Amino acid sequence: MKKNIKKHEEKVGFTLRGLENTRIESLSDGIFAIAIGLLLMSSDPPSNFSELMEFTRDLLPFAGTIAILMWIWYQHYLFFIRFGLRDAGTTAINTMLMFLVLFYAYPLKFMFRLLINLYQALLTQDQAMLNHIFTDTIAPQDTPTLMVIYGLGASAIFFVFVWLNKRALNRAEILDLSELEIRLTKNSIIMNVTSGVIPFLSVLIALFRVGGKYTFMISGFVYILYTIAMPLASRYGRKKLAELKAD
Amino acid sequence: MKKNIKKHEEKVGFTLRGLENTRIESLSDGIFAIAIGLLLMSSDPPSNFSELMEFTRDLLPFAGTIAILMWIWYQHYLFFIRFGLRDAGTTAINTMLMFLVLFYAYPLKFMFRLLINLYQALLTQDQAMLNHIFTDTIAPQDTPTLMVIYGLGASAIFFVFVWLNKRALNRAEILDLSELEIRLTKNSIIMNVTSGVIPFLSVLIALFRVGGKYTFMISGFVYILYTIAMPLASRYGRKKLAELKAD
Amino acid sequence: MKKNIKKHEEKVGFTLRGLENTRIESLSDGIFAIAIGLLLMSSDPPSNFSELMEFTRDLLPFAGTIAILMWIWYQHYLFFIRFGLRDAGTTAINTMLMFLVLFYAYPLKFMFRLLINLYQALLTQDQAMLNHIFTDTIAPQDTPTLMVIYGLGASAIFFVFVWLNKRALNRAEILDLSELEIRLTKNSIIMNVTSGVIPFLSVLIALFRVGGKYTFMISGFVYILYTIAMPLASRYGRKKLAELKAD
Amino acid sequence: MKKNIKKHEEKVGFTLRGLENTRIESLSDGIFAIAIGLLLMSSDPPSNFSELMEFTRDLLPFAGTIAILMWIWYQHYLFFIRFGLRDAGTTAINTMLMFLVLFYAYPLKFMFRLLINLYQALLTQDQAMLNHIFTDTIAPQDTPTLMVIYGLGASAIFFVFVWLNKRALNRAEILDLSELEIRLTKNSIIMNVTSGVIPFLSVLIALFRVGGKYTFMISGFVYILYTIAMPLASRYGRKKLAELKAD
Repeated sequence: MKKNIKKHEEKVGFTLRGLENTRIESLSDGIFAIAIGLLLMSSDPPSNFSELMEFTRDLLPFAGTIAILMWIWYQHYLFFIRFGLRDAGTTAINTMLMFLVLFYAYPLKFMFRLLINLYQALLTQDQAMLNHIFTDTIAPQDTPTLMVIYGLGASAIFFVFVWLNKRALNRAEILDLSELEIRLTKNSIIMNVTSGVIPFLSVLIALFRVGGKYTFMISGFVYILYTIAMPLASRYGRKKLAELKAD
Repeated sequence: MKKNIKKHEEKVGFTLRGLENTRIESLSDGIFAIAIGLLLMSSDPPSNFSELMEFTRDLLPFAGTIAILMWIWYQHYLFFIRFGLRDAGTTAINTMLMFLVLFYAYPLKFMFRLLINLYQALLTQDQAMLNHIFTDTIAPQDTPTLMVIYGLGASAIFFVFVWLNKRALNRAEILDLSELEIRLTKNSIIMNVTSGVIPFLSVLIALFRVGGKYTFMISGFVYILYTIAMPLASRYGRKKLAELKAD
Repeated sequence: MKKNIKKHEEKVGFTLRGLENTRIESLSDGIFAIAIGLLLMSSDPPSNFSELMEFTRDLLPFAGTIAILMWIWYQHYLFFIRFGLRDAGTTAINTMLMFLVLFYAYPLKFMFRLLINLYQALLTQDQAMLNHIFTDTIAPQDTPTLMVIYGLGASAIFFVFVWLNKRALNRAEILDLSELEIRLTKNSIIMNVTSGVIPFLSVLIALFRVGGKYTFMISGFVYILYTIAMPLASRYGRKKLAELKAD
Repeated sequence: MKKNIKKHEEKVGFTLRGLENTRIESLSDGIFAIAIGLLLMSSDPPSNFSELMEFTRDLLPFAGTIAILMWIWYQHYLFFIRFGLRDAGTTAINTMLMFLVLFYAYPLKFMFRLLINLYQALLTQDQAMLNHIFTDTIAPQDTPTLMVIYGLGASAIFFVFVWLNKRALNRAEILDLSELEIRLTKNSIIMNVTSGVIPFLSVLIALFRVGGKYTFMISGFVYILYTIAMPLASRYGRKKLAELKAD
């Protein structure tokens, strides 16, 4: 085990300062577990075959939501195992993250179900289903509001991670961070800022109805920026890392 | 990490006696996580846009409740990490705290929603909304009962912390508490007693209908005492601490 | 902390073999937390004052149930911290205990509510309420079945603890139990057997309708045997302990 | 404790590399606890005797489901305590397992209830109950779909364990696995592959309606293969183990 951890440290370049689990982590794990568990099991258990089939239709939306939540969990895990912070301030920021996780769990599942139904209807040219989606599920004029809600959530989660990493950076001396660790933390901040700015841009477009009746489409297409911005941010980070190692 | 904890100890003046998590703490974390998680996710997941909007209206009440619960969690965390008690008696007192946390989670959310609606109606001079609040949500003659319920809860939680800290103080010798630690624990007791007396005063006013039809208002205004009592209690504590350090 | 644990060991006479938490314990804590949390928060949150008052009526039944569940938790905690067992067999027996805890959580709350209503009706001579209890809540001819359900549950939980302690005793050599520890474990078995036999007696009476139409009363009065049997069992245990220490 | 663990290691032949609990395990325990807890407590608490009796009818289906979930938990526990892996890849595979556990919890309970009702009806020759099962609960033509759903779930869970063990095997050098440990891991893979292939066979039969109107029966009888395949797989594993020890 020790050897295993050592190898891991060498690979990511981080001394793991928070190896012993603290209660902030145990509470957070409990909250993540509940958010994930209730996503699927909050409805009544199926009591006949048609209810069971209804239940299985949750497969894809649930899979999508659990994947995103677990990705957030993994970022959370990395932060706490790397820096081992557990002061009152970190607890407060962590509370905001937990709040966002719980608050966006159901809306995320809603979004995945909507997107899956939408693609299915578009792929099968099912006009009846399309009509159903845009009348019963959501009216076209409400779609920008949807983009605002999700954009704010995504943005907020990334900026909480920026905040947490910034906090660790401010304690670089106390935590005895190496040059390499400081660089890696800065890179992490760059990635999270980039990830957080794009949904925020989408929010602004949706909020001010930029594009009139095409607002929904435009605010959605903004997310394509990820394919350009992320590789750039990542390349910048790697370059800085190479410079450091060259010294 | 070790260094980090050391610095922390120096700052707060406490040797952390309960660094390894005990099962009382792990059970309590589970209960806190469930209380926080169910606050938001106990209702059915939204299945269309209007239900989603309904869901987002929980944002502020949920944020308020989670903040209070996390504040209680942090006090709980500090107590157990400082003294590391885990005997049958502490377990019993902790059970009372868990009982209060679970019992007041929903009522807290109810209160935040009521207060937010009330301020919103008052700020926007929305007479229809005010009427709705005082007929459908709560009748004016029931408001004193509300003050009794919440005052008892707030009071009980503070006095449980008084009880726990008193218990630690009684074990000062076994726990090998330093003079400084004894003083800090006493200060903590003073703060909690002050915090607990004020809601209890509000309960008495509401219970005996002191002030007739103005009972609701008067029992509410009692909480303004916090702005006077807390600084006084805090100053007294700091003075005693300074005396100790002077010796 | 170390010193604190040491003192504790001296007092109860047990070397704590399971100080590091295992996953069996962490899973069990999660299940206890959920059982306790859902007891109160499984219903929808209150949305107006009358629903809030309805909610507060759960205070006493919830307090009673949480007290019993926490008592079981404490026995569970003691067993695992004392012997530190975590093999497949212990996991299987523990699963039975978790099953009983979850299965009896709701019925326990039901029983407390019934008893509280009953005593309230009897104390206030409220004939209407008594009628309501024995028609809408439970018909008189169903009461023996109720005694069977609860008796079996109580009995099963005590015998699971007998089983677990017996298992530890069988591993006395591997666990390196001292003479004193063996005696204390045997005493614990005697107490649990006594506690388990009484509800089982009640079950038999209720099952075979011993006493005709007085079956409910008789099967209930059986529990008074606790006031005789427990002190006897406890005295026997203390005597054996004294003999051991005399040698 | 140490001695106890040592003995345990000697018995199973594994050095326990993951003795300290990691957060992957703590999160997983939380999810298992929620899956198990909600199985029983997701419905509203019983408020009168007939609802209580209705609730107790869940006894057997719940017992069956909890037994299967705990068996999965134990495999999960063994894997993580043996290899102590906690990298991003293991987290991702573990997420799939958690997804399957949550997704199949309710359907498992549904299946147990169906099977119990079916056997009960067949044993008591209760024609009315049989009719009820095959009209209200599930129509005969839907039964193959049921076999597909369950077969895929069972298969997927076994193959996730194959994947996890394969992953550990690929890291044999980093983890410093002994010859014996490599053999035991391989045996574990053989058992899991065998366990996973049989339900997959049942899925294929049900999917392609092999056997026409007897599809349900045939796809069910496939599971009898377990009685032949498992002993064979187990014997093969023991033989290989004996060869290794002979060298």
